[in-house]
Amino acid sequence: MKTFDKTVRNQVVRVPDRGRYDYETIYHIVDEALFCHVGFVSQGQPFVIPTLHARRDDHVLLHGASTSRLMKHLESGEEVCLSMTLVDGIVLARSVFHHSMNYRSVVLFGRGSPIVGEEKLAAAEAFTEKLLPGRWDDARQPNAQELKATSVVSVPIQSASAKIRTGPPKDDDEDYALPVWAGVLPLEQRLGDPRADPALPEGTDLPAYLQTFLTSRNS
Amino acid sequence: MKTFDKTVRNQVVRVPDRGRYDYETIYHIVDEALFCHVGFVSQGQPFVIPTLHARRDDHVLLHGASTSRLMKHLESGEEVCLSMTLVDGIVLARSVFHHSMNYRSVVLFGRGSPIVGEEKLAAAEAFTEKLLPGRWDDARQPNAQELKATSVVSVPIQSASAKIRTGPPKDDDEDYALPVWAGVLPLEQRLGDPRADPALPEGTDLPAYLQTFLTSRNS
Repeated sequence: MKTFDKTVRNQVVRVPDRGRYDYETIYHIVDEALFCHVGFVSQGQPFVIPTLHARRDDHVLLHGASTSRLMKHLESGEEVCLSMTLVDGIVLARSVFHHSMNYRSVVLFGRGSPIVGEEKLAAAEAFTEKLLPGRWDDARQPNAQELKATSVVSVPIQSASAKIRTGPPKDDDEDYALPVWAGVLPLEQRLGDPRADPALPEGTDLPAYLQTFLTSRNS
Repeated sequence: MKTFDKTVRNQVVRVPDRGRYDYETIYHIVDEALFCHVGFVSQGQPFVIPTLHARRDDHVLLHGASTSRLMKHLESGEEVCLSMTLVDGIVLARSVFHHSMNYRSVVLFGRGSPIVGEEKLAAAEAFTEKLLPGRWDDARQPNAQELKATSVVSVPIQSASAKIRTGPPKDDDEDYALPVWAGVLPLEQRLGDPRADPALPEGTDLPAYLQTFLTSRNS
């Protein structure tokens, strides 16, 4: 099992048995997360900005308008921290103290570098296919001007860890006798019924790949 | 309408008409978000950590084990950035370039200070009631030892902004004629059927406040 080294930077200190360092677990969470929060430092001030991401092997790809502060910072190659969090449930213990969440989160560290030329188009495909598999071949692909207006940055993952909580609440022994309902309220993200653009000609069918996506995400 | 001043730090630069600075809009997002991502700087390195939060007036409350790195950092009073993001839909445009998300996000800035004594109990109530209204009066409330093991930090919101995208895709004029399905795939967070702790005596009824919560969250 390929794992990231444990260091001061990525080690899960609090409840260490929730920590995971293997690539497989970490990448599964990166891939399932629809978006990430990017942390960076500018003149000593921390910033955290949400943005879409895609993964290519051991790199996370980020994109945005060439003119954006976030992209300019990412391109500079300064240290960034990426965090993706999936919440799976609200954990109701008998005691307030043991209330918790079930979650799967990752924290990744690295430094970005700009992607240019032909590779930019491949990155655009990765973002599009992550959002909706099959979309790239259906939608109108980016032209030269659009590619120029978009910055793409690749962040090689230098260090990473995952933190995962699953299962029922854990109460103190003496609290199990309390007459308090305890358990987990599962949190589920579902796709609602597609809302066609009002400008779309009436009767335009949903494409097959979109139907497949809806079925697979909501199953 | 009470608003935060626009400064270099909080101003929405990219697509500025998506920016909001009024307290009402920002606090609505803070309150709806189940958790936040906390960004801080330690020895020049940015960190982004997910954690639960609650709001009290113009302060965000954060809590965790007294021994945790995150809480120690928050207590130190260094600058932190808090980000909450609600995703509402996947926006499918006719062109790849105009694909987007519908979302409501906030970015808040401030410096933490520890909450001690009696106020810690009130904070614990705020966290519990945010997770599940009605829970505080039902669950076993924290004892002195548990309160001691928990750090609570209050971050007065010095500066903040929201960024919001809603509605259908916006394509370039010439792309509206393309035979590509366009619209929004709504993303919904729902609560699944409660899973009772296997250690709970059989036949323990769901409390009324929990039923109410399920109904209101899933409506």
